[in-house]
Amino acid sequence: MNDIKWSKPEKKIARGAFEKAYVRECADFAMKIRAQVEKISKPDDIWDLHKFMTEKIKEIEGKYYYRYSVLILVFARLVKDRWLDFNDLKGLPESKIDCTESLVDF
Amino acid sequence: MNDIKWSKPEKKIARGAFEKAYVRECADFAMKIRAQVEKISKPDDIWDLHKFMTEKIKEIEGKYYYRYSVLILVFARLVKDRWLDFNDLKGLPESKIDCTESLVDF
Repeated sequence: MNDIKWSKPEKKIARGAFEKAYVRECADFAMKIRAQVEKISKPDDIWDLHKFMTEKIKEIEGKYYYRYSVLILVFARLVKDRWLDFNDLKGLPESKIDCTESLVDF
Repeated sequence: MNDIKWSKPEKKIARGAFEKAYVRECADFAMKIRAQVEKISKPDDIWDLHKFMTEKIKEIEGKYYYRYSVLILVFARLVKDRWLDFNDLKGLPESKIDCTESLVDF
């Protein structure tokens, strides 16, 4: 995975796809926060919301790791989790798309 | 402070006042969360909300410490922060009220 080279135009497409997925997942996260906030009726609900946010932030920070050496793995996970689809990766060479697909299936 | 004795009826009043302050402060906390959630427009806003909640939770957990040995100190702080007023402490003996008042002024 470390040997995969990224050209300048590929890096641009990759960065765009990565950002798109991040914004989508955060928008969904914000929606879930809003839904939970609406239900706050006692102090414990605040602590539950904070716990939910801490866990989700930890998950997001662990997942959105922008290093070219692991980017195919990151993309495969984002496709699997439906924050990204192959249209977002359009323009990348077939070898990288195939590799991502194999990892999604795996 | 350790020497202050609490009778059973005093403990009941103290517990009630403590709970009242806690519920009031948490209701205000929930209101501030709601206001901040309404303004979420980008991922960073979620991280800011989480940071605000982490700090406030830490403050609340440090403040609401129900031990009779430090309860007068806790009440003085709650009165100072306006989560409690002397009406909530009605029924406690004058010595405890005076002690709380002295600490608030201090």
